Amino acid sequence: MLRTHTCGDLRRTHVGQTVTLCGWVDKYRDHRGIVFIDLRDRYGKTQIKFNLSDDSDIQKTAWDLRYEDVVQVTGEVVERPADMTNPKLATGEIELRAKDLVVLNKSKTPPFEPEGQSLPNEELRLKYRFIDLRRPELQKAMIMRHKLTKATRDYFDSLGFLEVETPILGRSTPEGARDYLVPSRVHQGSFYALPQSPQLYKQLLMVGGLDRYVQIARCFRDEDLRADRQPEFTQIDVEMAFITREDLLQVIDGLVAAMTKAMRGIDIKLPLPRYTYNDVMERFGSDKPDLRFGMELVDIKDVAEKCEFGVFKQTIANGGRVRGINAKGAADKYSRRILDNDMKNLVADYGAKGIAYFKVTGGKLDSSIAKFFTEEQQQAIIAKLNGEEGDLLLFVADTNKVTSAALSALRSRLGRELQLYDPAEINVAWVLDFPLVTWNADENRWDAEHHPFCSVVPEDEQYFDTDPGRVRASSYDLICNGYEAASGSIRIHDPVMQQKVFDLLKINAEEAEKRFGFLLEALRYGAPPHGGIALGLDRWVMLYAGYDNIRDVIAFPKTQKASDLLTGAPSEVDTRQLRDLHIAISERK
Amino acid sequence: MLRTHTCGDLRRTHVGQTVTLCGWVDKYRDHRGIVFIDLRDRYGKTQIKFNLSDDSDIQKTAWDLRYEDVVQVTGEVVERPADMTNPKLATGEIELRAKDLVVLNKSKTPPFEPEGQSLPNEELRLKYRFIDLRRPELQKAMIMRHKLTKATRDYFDSLGFLEVETPILGRSTPEGARDYLVPSRVHQGSFYALPQSPQLYKQLLMVGGLDRYVQIARCFRDEDLRADRQPEFTQIDVEMAFITREDLLQVIDGLVAAMTKAMRGIDIKLPLPRYTYNDVMERFGSDKPDLRFGMELVDIKDVAEKCEFGVFKQTIANGGRVRGINAKGAADKYSRRILDNDMKNLVADYGAKGIAYFKVTGGKLDSSIAKFFTEEQQQAIIAKLNGEEGDLLLFVADTNKVTSAALSALRSRLGRELQLYDPAEINVAWVLDFPLVTWNADENRWDAEHHPFCSVVPEDEQYFDTDPGRVRASSYDLICNGYEAASGSIRIHDPVMQQKVFDLLKINAEEAEKRFGFLLEALRYGAPPHGGIALGLDRWVMLYAGYDNIRDVIAFPKTQKASDLLTGAPSEVDTRQLRDLHIAISERK
Repeated sequence: MLRTHTCGDLRRTHVGQTVTLCGWVDKYRDHRGIVFIDLRDRYGKTQIKFNLSDDSDIQKTAWDLRYEDVVQVTGEVVERPADMTNPKLATGEIELRAKDLVVLNKSKTPPFEPEGQSLPNEELRLKYRFIDLRRPELQKAMIMRHKLTKATRDYFDSLGFLEVETPILGRSTPEGARDYLVPSRVHQGSFYALPQSPQLYKQLLMVGGLDRYVQIARCFRDEDLRADRQPEFTQIDVEMAFITREDLLQVIDGLVAAMTKAMRGIDIKLPLPRYTYNDVMERFGSDKPDLRFGMELVDIKDVAEKCEFGVFKQTIANGGRVRGINAKGAADKYSRRILDNDMKNLVADYGAKGIAYFKVTGGKLDSSIAKFFTEEQQQAIIAKLNGEEGDLLLFVADTNKVTSAALSALRSRLGRELQLYDPAEINVAWVLDFPLVTWNADENRWDAEHHPFCSVVPEDEQYFDTDPGRVRASSYDLICNGYEAASGSIRIHDPVMQQKVFDLLKINAEEAEKRFGFLLEALRYGAPPHGGIALGLDRWVMLYAGYDNIRDVIAFPKTQKASDLLTGAPSEVDTRQLRDLHIAISERK
Repeated sequence: MLRTHTCGDLRRTHVGQTVTLCGWVDKYRDHRGIVFIDLRDRYGKTQIKFNLSDDSDIQKTAWDLRYEDVVQVTGEVVERPADMTNPKLATGEIELRAKDLVVLNKSKTPPFEPEGQSLPNEELRLKYRFIDLRRPELQKAMIMRHKLTKATRDYFDSLGFLEVETPILGRSTPEGARDYLVPSRVHQGSFYALPQSPQLYKQLLMVGGLDRYVQIARCFRDEDLRADRQPEFTQIDVEMAFITREDLLQVIDGLVAAMTKAMRGIDIKLPLPRYTYNDVMERFGSDKPDLRFGMELVDIKDVAEKCEFGVFKQTIANGGRVRGINAKGAADKYSRRILDNDMKNLVADYGAKGIAYFKVTGGKLDSSIAKFFTEEQQQAIIAKLNGEEGDLLLFVADTNKVTSAALSALRSRLGRELQLYDPAEINVAWVLDFPLVTWNADENRWDAEHHPFCSVVPEDEQYFDTDPGRVRASSYDLICNGYEAASGSIRIHDPVMQQKVFDLLKINAEEAEKRFGFLLEALRYGAPPHGGIALGLDRWVMLYAGYDNIRDVIAFPKTQKASDLLTGAPSEVDTRQLRDLHIAISERK
């Protein structure tokens, strides 16, 4: 190596040794002719000192050093005077007294400094990703990502799982998101598709007797990107044969424990809490509630239907719901303007026409609409929501769906603003028993809630023909801090049942055969009972790192326009390349 | 789990226990009304016995079992009579006396049996890959592949390498092979390219200070496929900063030792042997010789230029070479017909006009052309090639290039046919100091021997302008059993030097900026010295497994026409999908 130690290695025990370090010039300063530089690499920083008495060539070279130059320094490790130590730095008790200096590569003046005071806009950072990656925050993310995947692989290996690579050049079976397509040169007019997930391949592996499969798999979705999505993303993809749902949940409980141990060094309590879909929808209005705090939704139908407040009364009469939440101690936290504007706009995004709110003051409700509630009704509301002096009670009256969505959004905002949880906490739980299908009113048909390969909870098979909306899938999500962090199910292994589900989704036999024929065929030749799950790796790294930008945990991410600002992908290509692929670019409309 | 044990678990120590197994019906036979089945899963096989006295329902179900049905059997482990044990089976000392039988899934009659007597053609096996994967040979390959990647990751992790995922949706920078392209929906007329390797990204990671990178990376090449190539393949991709070539070689020596230990359980001797490119070309006529046997090429210029055999004499006079090999003891192994036809055709494929051959008989050369050589010349030839009674000496007279290629091919064939090595042996060695460039006579320019980012051996920089063909790259290949099994180099980290190489390759500044601008830019902002290597994972698994078909070590491989016979990829897609992507299929010519 061009170095004997890294910039994070040296301690007081090395004093007196002659060592060689390599790295980037992080800081430089000239103190009465003595040049100091901080030398940085992935492992840390070390202070280098060039004395006035040094060889004049070295001194001159040191004077010329600028940010981000790459140098090799040889020198003696010396102890810093007691008043000059830097407790923030692992190497802060020593410095290197330079004896030799080689400039390995000069740097142009960088557009920003990795450890500068202010971070430039993200576009510039993405264009100069090779500089951005030198920032300790991004290096930490890459290291955590490595450790998380290592811990994941070690865990599954210890349980006899095999990591199997499934194809990237696959077949287009569009459902949900758009496929990325790859034109075939050999087969004119035909296309490969990049996988949205290895779902079908992993089921085929189970039919193929591989028994326990895991893969840290790249997946692709050509969607209009939300802030936390990327066109290519990575999932921890798992499938097991001859299992019940309980087996899968236990294996993944163990994985979450192993991941948390690797990332945070703590032992979490197992089993992870389990909720049903109906549970969380009723209590939190969301299938992925943030469980770091309470503030559960409370139904006040009994009061609402009898009170004189028209909105409440009418809603109940129309078969709707009136539900509320208690923002403990927040009576004076929000102005009328914020409640009537900001909060109202927030719930409006979810279809709610308004919010009703009350402060608990002197044991009674204080609100412009309090007059519509009798003393008894007020006490009933306070009791139902465990209201105490200074609490703020907020209500939405609408359909079940709208009250859920609106109050869930309100709850998230209040939880964050009132700092009801430790942002660093990782709170993981299961949500079980999702509905198999949801009604798609636009298309006048049932859509799969997860995907068409989920099996049905056995006791609900009886409703399959008569009341499909009531049928629960044998499915499960892992939720973490308000995100869906994993999703899976026990699969259908019976080809007849699989066709029944396709029928329900109005995928007729011919279409099913065309799109999923190879899976149906596989189910006919001895498919074992099997099930699995997929965890969004990028999301988990982000959660453990405590970051809120998914691009900060990906080495070379793309923008929301799916561009790589560093390499300029996607780009125009040679006409010859397109000719070889038998395609042409359509005229611009 | 639906089972208490796997089909490979049970031993004599389990006798008396009641257990439940799940698996596929591998064999079934009815012996005087007693049904026996072999139950198979990934872990092994267990014999199940259904007695006549069993519950009649179970007995009837057992009678109806057929190949590849998936069943769950509960029963008691009993010892087999001494004369009925099966030493070939790990579970051969016991059998399961069935008490309960559940058919989990019936199978249609499979097109072939995973452990049938004869294997059907590969097309059928690829179409029914989910059955083929149940074959122990393929399961072994998947298990070895998993273990090899696990050992690789453990090794690099222990050395502080980070596994970093680089993009699959990248930028097209065509060189060598064709890129697979992915049309962009968001950016009309633009395309992503699937990476031929993560080369540029890993160099950018080094500029980004990641220091030590590894990735088991999927790569793509749209080439007309040779038998051992796949459109997508996997490489163990490595890059390190602040190193010399020696550091890299030592790290990879350790990797090969770790891999061999994991695959074969043996400790190999380190350091691995090192040869220069000139060495192996001179001694074996190939830059990837099979070193499991000797049979080195010998130059007989001294004799050839003086003998009366016109072909030899003329070749030397024209500046060509006469070189030969000694097939020990093979004098009587090949008929004249084979030597004059087969062998001649073989060398003709490499441009040679013929071969001259002699048998060593009675201390002299025996050949139709022996008369053109004096006694003294014959003795000189015998001495140079260490000829002994019964040896067959074969010579090719032509240019350096043709004699190398022809004799290398001849050597490979003879080595194999004469069984000069143990086919199971893994023989790994380094080849160093490849030429930086080779002359491309068709295009009248220099081509990069590896790729345009290789640095130059320092003492050869002096020839860069005057004699580029003489310049050695700081590059290295790992060769194994006649294959190139890895390839790498110390990279250029100086942007001026990088442009010099582009100039030599006639990639002008404008073109370089267009194709590799982001790399050149990165080199200008503090690129550390760095280098790396990439190992072909599929090839290594194949070598360790002792298989000769690369498709047998890939779960879902493609044919030589780049088709997936199982899923039918590539396939036609909806017109809507193409419209979204702003592309159209060109008219068939």
